[in-house]
Amino acid sequence: MHDRHVIAFDADDTLWHNETIFAAVQERYRALLARYHDAETVNRTLFATEMRNLELYGYGVKGFTLSSIETAIELTRGAISAEEIRTILRLGREMLAHPVELLDGVAEVLAALGATHELMLITKGDLSHQQRKLARSGLAAHFRAIEVVAEKDEAAYAEILRHRRIAPADFLMVGNSLKSDILPVLALGAAAVHIPYHVTWQHEHMEQLPKVPGRFFQLMSIRGLPALLNVRPPV
Amino acid sequence: MHDRHVIAFDADDTLWHNETIFAAVQERYRALLARYHDAETVNRTLFATEMRNLELYGYGVKGFTLSSIETAIELTRGAISAEEIRTILRLGREMLAHPVELLDGVAEVLAALGATHELMLITKGDLSHQQRKLARSGLAAHFRAIEVVAEKDEAAYAEILRHRRIAPADFLMVGNSLKSDILPVLALGAAAVHIPYHVTWQHEHMEQLPKVPGRFFQLMSIRGLPALLNVRPPV
Repeated sequence: MHDRHVIAFDADDTLWHNETIFAAVQERYRALLARYHDAETVNRTLFATEMRNLELYGYGVKGFTLSSIETAIELTRGAISAEEIRTILRLGREMLAHPVELLDGVAEVLAALGATHELMLITKGDLSHQQRKLARSGLAAHFRAIEVVAEKDEAAYAEILRHRRIAPADFLMVGNSLKSDILPVLALGAAAVHIPYHVTWQHEHMEQLPKVPGRFFQLMSIRGLPALLNVRPPV
Repeated sequence: MHDRHVIAFDADDTLWHNETIFAAVQERYRALLARYHDAETVNRTLFATEMRNLELYGYGVKGFTLSSIETAIELTRGAISAEEIRTILRLGREMLAHPVELLDGVAEVLAALGATHELMLITKGDLSHQQRKLARSGLAAHFRAIEVVAEKDEAAYAEILRHRRIAPADFLMVGNSLKSDILPVLALGAAAVHIPYHVTWQHEHMEQLPKVPGRFFQLMSIRGLPALLNVRPPV
Protein backbone atom coordinates (compact mmCIF):
# COMPACT_ATOMS: atom_id res chain seq x y z
CA MET A 1 0.00 0.00 0.00
CA HIS A 2 2.99 2.38 -0.47
CA ASP A 3 1.76 3.35 -3.90
CA ARG A 4 -1.51 5.09 -2.98
CA HIS A 5 -0.74 8.80 -2.97
CA VAL A 6 -4.24 10.12 -2.41
CA ILE A 7 -6.15 9.15 0.71
CA ALA A 8 -9.76 10.27 0.92
CA PHE A 9 -11.72 10.19 4.16
CA ASP A 10 -15.41 10.01 4.78
CA ALA A 11 -16.47 12.54 7.46
CA ASP A 12 -19.53 11.52 9.55
CA ASP A 13 -18.70 8.59 11.86
CA THR A 14 -15.23 8.29 10.32
CA LEU A 15 -13.63 11.55 11.51
CA TRP A 16 -16.29 12.80 13.90
CA HIS A 17 -19.35 11.43 15.71
CA ASN A 18 -22.66 11.73 13.88
CA GLU A 19 -24.90 8.69 14.31
CA THR A 20 -24.72 8.96 18.13
CA ILE A 21 -26.05 12.53 17.86
CA PHE A 22 -28.91 11.37 15.62
CA ALA A 23 -29.60 8.49 18.04
CA ALA A 24 -29.74 10.84 21.05
CA VAL A 25 -32.17 13.15 19.22
CA GLN A 26 -34.34 10.21 18.15
CA GLU A 27 -34.47 9.15 21.79
CA ARG A 28 -35.95 12.55 22.72
CA TYR A 29 -38.25 12.38 19.70
CA ARG A 30 -39.58 9.00 20.82
CA ALA A 31 -40.14 10.41 24.34
CA LEU A 32 -42.18 13.25 22.79
CA LEU A 33 -44.43 10.71 21.06
CA ALA A 34 -44.40 8.10 23.83
CA ARG A 35 -47.99 8.79 24.92
CA TYR A 36 -49.16 7.97 21.38
CA HIS A 37 -46.94 5.07 20.28
CA ASP A 38 -44.25 2.66 21.42
CA ALA A 39 -40.63 3.23 20.41
CA GLU A 40 -40.61 0.52 17.77
CA THR A 41 -43.61 2.00 15.93
CA VAL A 42 -42.07 5.48 16.01
CA ASN A 43 -38.73 4.17 14.68
CA ARG A 44 -40.35 2.14 11.92
CA THR A 45 -42.66 4.94 10.78
CA LEU A 46 -39.94 7.59 10.87
CA PHE A 47 -37.59 5.40 8.83
CA ALA A 48 -40.36 4.74 6.28
CA THR A 49 -41.01 8.50 5.98
CA GLU A 50 -37.28 9.18 5.56
CA MET A 51 -36.98 6.60 2.80
CA ARG A 52 -40.10 7.90 1.04
CA ASN A 53 -38.68 11.45 1.12
CA LEU A 54 -35.06 10.53 0.34
CA GLU A 55 -35.24 11.34 -3.36
CA LEU A 56 -36.78 14.76 -2.68
CA TYR A 57 -34.90 15.66 0.52
CA GLY A 58 -31.55 13.94 0.09
CA TYR A 59 -29.39 13.27 3.17
CA GLY A 60 -28.89 15.53 6.15
CA VAL A 61 -30.43 17.08 9.22
CA LYS A 62 -32.93 19.38 7.49
CA GLY A 63 -34.61 16.54 5.59
CA PHE A 64 -34.56 14.47 8.78
CA THR A 65 -36.30 17.29 10.68
CA LEU A 66 -38.97 17.67 7.98
CA SER A 67 -39.57 13.90 7.98
CA SER A 68 -39.76 13.93 11.79
CA ILE A 69 -42.49 16.60 11.73
CA GLU A 70 -44.41 14.73 9.02
CA THR A 71 -44.17 11.47 10.98
CA ALA A 72 -45.29 13.13 14.22
CA ILE A 73 -48.41 14.57 12.56
CA GLU A 74 -49.15 11.18 10.98
CA LEU A 75 -48.60 9.14 14.17
CA THR A 76 -50.71 11.46 16.34
CA ARG A 77 -53.42 11.81 13.66
CA GLY A 78 -52.97 15.56 13.88
CA ALA A 79 -53.23 15.72 17.67
CA ILE A 80 -49.65 16.94 18.08
CA SER A 81 -49.48 20.54 19.31
CA ALA A 82 -47.67 23.44 17.68
CA GLU A 83 -45.51 23.59 20.81
CA GLU A 84 -44.42 19.98 20.28
CA ILE A 85 -43.61 20.69 16.63
CA ARG A 86 -41.60 23.66 17.81
CA THR A 87 -39.67 21.19 20.01
CA ILE A 88 -38.91 19.04 16.95
CA LEU A 89 -37.66 22.14 15.10
CA ARG A 90 -35.45 22.90 18.08
CA LEU A 91 -34.06 19.33 18.09
CA GLY A 92 -33.13 19.82 14.44
CA ARG A 93 -31.38 23.11 15.11
CA GLU A 94 -29.53 21.54 18.05
CA MET A 95 -28.18 18.83 15.74
CA LEU A 96 -27.03 21.45 13.23
CA ALA A 97 -25.35 23.49 15.97
CA HIS A 98 -23.91 20.47 17.80
CA PRO A 99 -20.18 20.69 18.59
CA VAL A 100 -17.96 18.54 16.40
CA GLU A 101 -16.49 15.69 18.42
CA LEU A 102 -13.57 13.94 16.75
CA LEU A 103 -13.18 10.19 16.97
CA ASP A 104 -10.19 8.89 18.89
CA GLY A 105 -6.86 9.28 17.09
CA VAL A 106 -8.20 11.30 14.14
CA ALA A 107 -6.24 14.52 14.68
CA GLU A 108 -2.91 12.73 15.21
CA VAL A 109 -3.32 10.30 12.31
CA LEU A 110 -4.33 13.02 9.81
CA ALA A 111 -1.33 15.11 10.88
CA ALA A 112 0.99 12.12 10.33
CA LEU A 113 -0.48 11.09 6.97
CA GLY A 114 -0.70 14.67 5.71
CA ALA A 115 3.10 14.76 5.68
CA THR A 116 3.38 11.83 3.28
CA HIS A 117 0.09 11.73 1.33
CA GLU A 118 -2.40 14.02 -0.34
CA LEU A 119 -5.53 13.98 1.83
CA MET A 120 -9.10 14.56 0.63
CA LEU A 121 -12.47 14.67 2.32
CA ILE A 122 -15.43 13.08 0.51
CA THR A 123 -18.75 13.28 2.25
CA LYS A 124 -22.43 13.26 1.39
CA GLY A 125 -25.34 15.18 2.79
CA ASP A 126 -26.00 18.78 3.50
CA LEU A 127 -23.42 21.07 1.92
CA SER A 128 -23.51 23.97 4.36
CA HIS A 129 -23.68 21.67 7.41
CA GLN A 130 -20.74 19.55 6.28
CA GLN A 131 -18.64 22.63 5.55
CA ARG A 132 -19.48 24.13 8.93
CA LYS A 133 -18.54 20.89 10.69
CA LEU A 134 -15.23 20.78 8.82
CA ALA A 135 -14.48 24.39 9.74
CA ARG A 136 -15.19 23.64 13.40
CA SER A 137 -13.29 20.34 13.41
CA GLY A 138 -9.88 21.97 13.25
CA LEU A 139 -9.01 19.47 10.50
CA ALA A 140 -9.56 21.61 7.39
CA ALA A 141 -5.88 22.44 6.88
CA HIS A 142 -5.01 18.76 6.41
CA PHE A 143 -7.16 18.42 3.28
CA ARG A 144 -6.04 19.36 -0.21
CA ALA A 145 -9.59 18.98 -1.49
CA ILE A 146 -13.14 18.73 -0.15
CA GLU A 147 -15.98 17.07 -2.05
CA VAL A 148 -19.57 17.05 -0.83
CA VAL A 149 -21.73 14.88 -3.07
CA ALA A 150 -25.45 14.12 -3.11
CA GLU A 151 -24.93 10.35 -3.21
CA LYS A 152 -21.70 8.37 -2.71
CA ASP A 153 -22.11 5.94 -5.56
CA GLU A 154 -19.73 4.67 -8.23
CA ALA A 155 -20.62 7.50 -10.63
CA ALA A 156 -19.86 10.15 -8.01
CA TYR A 157 -16.43 8.67 -7.19
CA ALA A 158 -15.64 8.22 -10.90
CA GLU A 159 -16.44 11.88 -11.52
CA ILE A 160 -14.21 13.01 -8.63
CA LEU A 161 -11.27 10.87 -9.83
CA ARG A 162 -11.78 12.12 -13.39
CA HIS A 163 -11.86 15.83 -12.70
CA ARG A 164 -9.14 15.63 -10.04
CA ARG A 165 -7.04 13.57 -12.48
CA ILE A 166 -6.44 10.74 -9.98
CA ALA A 167 -5.85 7.19 -11.21
CA PRO A 168 -7.79 4.50 -9.29
CA ALA A 169 -4.44 2.79 -8.58
CA ASP A 170 -3.39 5.94 -6.69
CA PHE A 171 -6.57 6.25 -4.64
CA LEU A 172 -7.50 4.93 -1.21
CA MET A 173 -10.85 5.68 0.49
CA VAL A 174 -11.31 5.39 4.26
CA GLY A 175 -14.78 5.24 5.79
CA ASN A 176 -17.30 3.57 8.06
CA SER A 177 -19.96 2.68 5.48
CA LEU A 178 -19.50 -0.38 3.28
CA LYS A 179 -22.30 0.84 1.02
CA SER A 180 -21.10 4.44 0.58
CA ASP A 181 -17.35 4.41 1.22
CA ILE A 182 -16.10 0.97 0.28
CA LEU A 183 -18.05 -0.94 -2.40
CA PRO A 184 -18.26 1.83 -5.07
CA VAL A 185 -14.54 2.58 -4.62
CA LEU A 186 -13.55 -1.10 -4.95
CA ALA A 187 -15.75 -1.33 -8.07
CA LEU A 188 -13.62 1.40 -9.66
CA GLY A 189 -10.44 -0.55 -9.02
CA ALA A 190 -9.24 1.68 -6.17
CA ALA A 191 -8.49 0.60 -2.60
CA ALA A 192 -10.61 1.03 0.52
CA VAL A 193 -10.23 0.76 4.28
CA HIS A 194 -13.35 0.07 6.30
CA ILE A 195 -13.37 1.34 9.89
CA PRO A 196 -16.76 0.38 11.38
CA TYR A 197 -18.50 2.82 13.70
CA HIS A 198 -20.33 1.34 16.68
CA VAL A 199 -23.73 2.52 15.33
CA THR A 200 -24.80 2.12 11.69
CA TRP A 201 -27.87 3.85 10.26
CA GLN A 202 -30.29 1.21 8.97
CA HIS A 203 -30.08 2.69 5.44
CA GLU A 204 -26.29 2.09 5.32
CA HIS A 205 -26.38 -1.39 6.82
CA MET A 206 -24.81 -4.35 4.98
CA GLU A 207 -24.06 -7.85 6.10
CA GLN A 208 -21.46 -9.10 3.68
CA LEU A 209 -17.82 -8.01 3.65
CA PRO A 210 -16.22 -7.66 0.21
CA LYS A 211 -13.37 -10.01 -0.71
CA VAL A 212 -10.74 -8.08 -2.65
CA PRO A 213 -7.28 -9.13 -1.44
CA GLY A 214 -4.76 -6.29 -1.53
CA ARG A 215 -7.38 -3.60 -2.07
CA PHE A 216 -9.79 -4.02 0.85
CA PHE A 217 -8.84 -3.76 4.50
CA GLN A 218 -10.73 -3.48 7.75
CA LEU A 219 -9.42 -1.69 10.82
CA MET A 220 -10.84 -1.30 14.32
CA SER A 221 -9.58 2.28 14.57
CA ILE A 222 -8.07 5.00 12.42
CA ARG A 223 -4.96 4.54 14.60
CA GLY A 224 -4.15 1.45 12.52
CA LEU A 225 -3.93 3.41 9.27
CA PRO A 226 -0.29 4.63 9.41
CA ALA A 227 1.02 1.09 9.90
CA LEU A 228 -1.09 -0.18 7.00
CA LEU A 229 0.44 2.55 4.82
CA ASN A 230 3.95 2.08 6.18
CA VAL A 231 3.90 5.57 7.65
CA ARG A 232 5.53 6.09 11.02
CA PRO A 233 2.68 6.25 13.57
CA PRO A 234 2.13 9.52 15.45
CA VAL A 235 3.75 9.64 18.89
CA MET B 1 -14.29 39.00 -25.08
CA HIS B 2 -12.84 36.35 -27.48
CA ASP B 3 -10.27 35.35 -24.94
CA ARG B 4 -12.53 33.90 -22.21
CA HIS B 5 -12.52 30.16 -22.76
CA VAL B 6 -14.53 29.14 -19.71
CA ILE B 7 -18.08 30.41 -19.28
CA ALA B 8 -19.78 29.58 -16.01
CA PHE B 9 -23.53 29.95 -15.54
CA ASP B 10 -25.57 30.43 -12.41
CA ALA B 11 -28.62 28.13 -12.41
CA ASP B 12 -31.68 29.45 -10.52
CA ASP B 13 -33.24 32.43 -12.35
CA THR B 14 -30.42 32.40 -14.91
CA LEU B 15 -31.11 29.09 -16.69
CA TRP B 16 -34.45 28.16 -15.17
CA HIS B 17 -37.22 29.84 -13.17
CA ASN B 18 -36.93 29.70 -9.40
CA GLU B 19 -37.97 32.91 -7.66
CA THR B 20 -41.40 32.82 -9.36
CA ILE B 21 -41.95 29.34 -7.87
CA PHE B 22 -40.95 30.60 -4.40
CA ALA B 23 -43.22 33.63 -4.88
CA ALA B 24 -46.22 31.46 -5.85
CA VAL B 25 -45.68 29.27 -2.79
CA GLN B 26 -45.35 32.29 -0.51
CA GLU B 27 -48.65 33.54 -1.92
CA ARG B 28 -50.34 30.33 -0.78
CA TYR B 29 -48.47 30.50 2.54
CA ARG B 30 -49.78 34.03 3.15
CA ALA B 31 -53.32 32.85 2.30
CA LEU B 32 -52.93 30.09 4.93
CA LEU B 33 -52.06 32.71 7.58
CA ALA B 34 -54.39 35.44 6.31
CA ARG B 35 -56.87 35.08 9.18
CA TYR B 36 -54.05 35.80 11.64
CA HIS B 37 -51.94 38.48 9.93
CA ASP B 38 -51.74 40.73 6.88
CA ALA B 39 -49.41 39.85 4.01
CA GLU B 40 -46.77 42.41 4.92
CA THR B 41 -46.39 41.07 8.49
CA VAL B 42 -46.13 37.50 7.20
CA ASN B 43 -43.47 38.48 4.63
CA ARG B 44 -41.45 40.50 7.13
CA THR B 45 -41.54 37.81 9.83
CA LEU B 46 -40.74 34.99 7.42
CA PHE B 47 -37.77 36.89 6.00
CA ALA B 48 -36.50 37.63 9.53
CA THR B 49 -36.77 33.91 10.42
CA GLU B 50 -34.95 32.93 7.20
CA MET B 51 -32.11 35.35 7.92
CA ARG B 52 -31.84 34.19 11.55
CA ASN B 53 -31.62 30.55 10.38
CA LEU B 54 -29.39 31.17 7.35
CA GLU B 55 -26.15 30.20 9.03
CA LEU B 56 -27.65 26.93 10.34
CA TYR B 57 -29.88 26.04 7.38
CA GLY B 58 -28.02 27.49 4.39
CA TYR B 59 -29.92 28.15 1.16
CA GLY B 60 -32.60 26.00 -0.40
CA VAL B 61 -36.15 24.73 -0.15
CA LYS B 62 -35.72 22.54 2.94
CA GLY B 63 -34.45 25.40 5.09
CA PHE B 64 -37.20 27.62 3.67
CA THR B 65 -39.83 25.03 4.64
CA LEU B 66 -38.46 24.72 8.18
CA SER B 67 -38.43 28.52 8.55
CA SER B 68 -41.98 28.69 7.20
CA ILE B 69 -43.20 26.25 9.84
CA GLU B 70 -41.36 28.10 12.60
CA THR B 71 -42.82 31.44 11.44
CA ALA B 72 -46.35 30.03 11.22
CA ILE B 73 -46.16 28.75 14.81
CA GLU B 74 -44.79 32.09 15.97
CA LEU B 75 -47.31 34.25 14.10
CA THR B 76 -50.32 32.19 15.26
CA ARG B 77 -48.97 31.91 18.84
CA GLY B 78 -49.27 28.17 18.51
CA ALA B 79 -52.85 28.20 17.23
CA ILE B 80 -51.89 26.74 13.85
CA SER B 81 -53.20 23.22 13.38
CA ALA B 82 -51.22 20.10 12.53
CA GLU B 83 -53.23 19.94 9.30
CA GLU B 84 -52.04 23.42 8.33
CA ILE B 85 -48.44 22.48 9.10
CA ARG B 86 -48.93 19.44 6.91
CA THR B 87 -49.99 21.85 4.16
CA ILE B 88 -46.72 23.78 4.58
CA LEU B 89 -44.78 20.51 4.35
CA ARG B 90 -46.67 19.74 1.15
CA LEU B 91 -45.88 23.18 -0.30
CA GLY B 92 -42.19 22.46 0.34
CA ARG B 93 -42.35 19.09 -1.36
CA GLU B 94 -44.18 20.64 -4.31
CA MET B 95 -41.34 23.13 -4.75
CA LEU B 96 -38.79 20.29 -4.67
CA ALA B 97 -40.75 18.28 -7.19
CA HIS B 98 -41.64 21.27 -9.41
CA PRO B 99 -40.87 20.81 -13.12
CA VAL B 100 -37.82 22.68 -14.38
CA GLU B 101 -38.89 25.52 -16.68
CA LEU B 102 -36.05 26.97 -18.76
CA LEU B 103 -35.82 30.69 -19.38
CA ASP B 104 -36.29 31.84 -22.95
CA GLY B 105 -33.33 31.12 -25.23
CA VAL B 106 -31.34 29.07 -22.73
CA ALA B 107 -31.28 25.75 -24.58
CA GLU B 108 -30.30 27.32 -27.93
CA VAL B 109 -27.63 29.61 -26.49
CA LEU B 110 -25.96 26.87 -24.42
CA ALA B 111 -25.88 24.61 -27.49
CA ALA B 112 -24.24 27.38 -29.53
CA LEU B 113 -21.68 28.36 -26.89
CA GLY B 114 -20.88 24.76 -26.00
CA ALA B 115 -19.34 24.37 -29.45
CA THR B 116 -16.80 27.16 -28.89
CA HIS B 117 -16.34 27.41 -25.11
CA GLU B 118 -15.98 25.22 -22.05
CA LEU B 119 -19.21 25.61 -20.06
CA MET B 120 -19.58 25.24 -16.30
CA LEU B 121 -22.48 25.46 -13.88
CA ILE B 122 -21.89 27.17 -10.53
CA THR B 123 -24.83 27.30 -8.18
CA LYS B 124 -25.51 27.53 -4.47
CA GLY B 125 -28.11 25.91 -2.31
CA ASP B 126 -29.27 22.42 -1.81
CA LEU B 127 -26.95 19.86 -3.42
CA SER B 128 -29.45 17.10 -4.18
CA HIS B 129 -32.14 19.54 -5.36
CA GLN B 130 -29.77 21.40 -7.70
CA GLN B 131 -28.48 18.14 -9.18
CA ARG B 132 -32.01 16.87 -9.70
CA LYS B 133 -33.02 20.11 -11.43
CA LEU B 134 -29.99 19.89 -13.69
CA ALA B 135 -30.78 16.29 -14.58
CA ARG B 136 -34.35 17.27 -15.46
CA SER B 137 -33.37 20.41 -17.35
CA GLY B 138 -31.97 18.52 -20.32
CA LEU B 139 -28.93 20.82 -20.13
CA ALA B 140 -26.47 18.58 -18.26
CA ALA B 141 -24.59 17.44 -21.38
CA HIS B 142 -23.53 21.03 -22.16
CA PHE B 143 -21.51 21.39 -18.96
CA ARG B 144 -17.96 20.19 -18.54
CA ALA B 145 -18.18 20.77 -14.77
CA ILE B 146 -20.81 21.33 -12.08
CA GLU B 147 -20.08 23.11 -8.81
CA VAL B 148 -22.63 23.45 -6.02
CA VAL B 149 -21.28 25.66 -3.24
CA ALA B 150 -22.67 26.68 0.14
CA GLU B 151 -22.09 30.40 -0.48
CA LYS B 152 -21.11 32.16 -3.72
CA ASP B 153 -18.49 34.48 -2.32
CA GLU B 154 -15.01 35.43 -3.49
CA ALA B 155 -13.38 32.56 -1.56
CA ALA B 156 -15.67 30.00 -3.18
CA TYR B 157 -14.94 31.26 -6.72
CA ALA B 158 -11.20 31.46 -5.96
CA GLU B 159 -11.22 27.84 -4.80
CA ILE B 160 -13.05 26.70 -7.96
CA LEU B 161 -10.62 28.54 -10.26
CA ARG B 162 -7.66 27.17 -8.30
CA HIS B 163 -8.61 23.49 -8.34
CA ARG B 164 -9.93 23.63 -11.90
CA ARG B 165 -6.70 25.42 -12.94
CA ILE B 166 -8.56 28.32 -14.62
CA ALA B 167 -6.91 31.75 -14.83
CA PRO B 168 -9.25 34.68 -13.96
CA ALA B 169 -8.44 36.16 -17.40
CA ASP B 170 -9.98 33.03 -18.97
CA PHE B 171 -13.15 33.06 -16.88
CA LEU B 172 -16.56 34.61 -17.46
CA MET B 173 -19.49 34.21 -15.06
CA VAL B 174 -23.10 34.71 -16.18
CA GLY B 175 -25.88 35.18 -13.63
CA ASN B 176 -28.84 37.15 -12.32
CA SER B 177 -27.48 38.10 -8.88
CA LEU B 178 -25.06 41.01 -8.56
CA LYS B 179 -24.22 39.87 -5.04
CA SER B 180 -23.60 36.19 -5.78
CA ASP B 181 -22.68 35.97 -9.47
CA ILE B 182 -21.05 39.27 -10.40
CA LEU B 183 -19.24 41.18 -7.62
CA PRO B 184 -17.12 38.30 -6.22
CA VAL B 185 -16.09 37.31 -9.76
CA LEU B 186 -15.10 40.88 -10.70
CA ALA B 187 -13.13 41.13 -7.46
CA LEU B 188 -11.01 38.17 -8.61
CA GLY B 189 -10.19 39.91 -11.90
CA ALA B 190 -12.48 37.73 -14.02
CA ALA B 191 -15.36 38.94 -16.21
CA ALA B 192 -19.08 38.82 -15.50
CA VAL B 193 -22.34 39.25 -17.39
CA HIS B 194 -25.40 40.26 -15.39
CA ILE B 195 -28.78 39.17 -16.76
CA PRO B 196 -31.42 40.45 -14.31
CA TYR B 197 -34.42 38.25 -13.54
CA HIS B 198 -37.76 40.00 -13.12
CA VAL B 199 -37.97 39.01 -9.43
CA THR B 200 -35.06 39.29 -7.00
CA TRP B 201 -35.10 37.73 -3.55
CA GLN B 202 -34.68 40.48 -0.95
CA HIS B 203 -31.47 38.82 0.35
CA GLU B 204 -29.80 39.12 -3.07
CA HIS B 205 -30.96 42.66 -3.76
CA MET B 206 -28.42 45.40 -4.59
CA GLU B 207 -28.90 48.92 -5.86
CA GLN B 208 -25.56 49.84 -7.34
CA LEU B 209 -24.17 48.48 -10.61
CA PRO B 210 -20.41 47.86 -10.66
CA LYS B 211 -18.26 49.96 -13.02
CA VAL B 212 -15.57 47.74 -14.53
CA PRO B 213 -15.21 48.59 -18.23
CA GLY B 214 -14.33 45.59 -20.38
CA ARG B 215 -15.08 43.07 -17.63
CA PHE B 216 -18.67 43.80 -16.64
CA PHE B 217 -21.66 43.66 -18.97
CA GLN B 218 -25.40 43.67 -18.53
CA LEU B 219 -27.83 41.94 -20.89
CA MET B 220 -31.60 41.82 -20.98
CA SER B 221 -31.62 38.18 -22.08
CA ILE B 222 -29.23 35.25 -22.45
CA ARG B 223 -29.94 35.59 -26.18
CA GLY B 224 -27.49 38.51 -26.24
CA LEU B 225 -24.57 36.38 -25.05
CA PRO B 226 -23.34 34.90 -28.38
CA ALA B 227 -23.01 38.36 -29.94
CA LEU B 228 -21.10 39.63 -26.89
CA LEU B 229 -18.70 36.69 -27.28
CA ASN B 230 -18.51 36.98 -31.07
CA VAL B 231 -20.12 33.57 -31.47
CA ARG B 232 -22.61 33.10 -34.30
CA PRO B 233 -26.08 33.26 -32.71
CA PRO B 234 -28.27 30.14 -32.81
CA VAL B 235 -30.78 30.05 -35.65
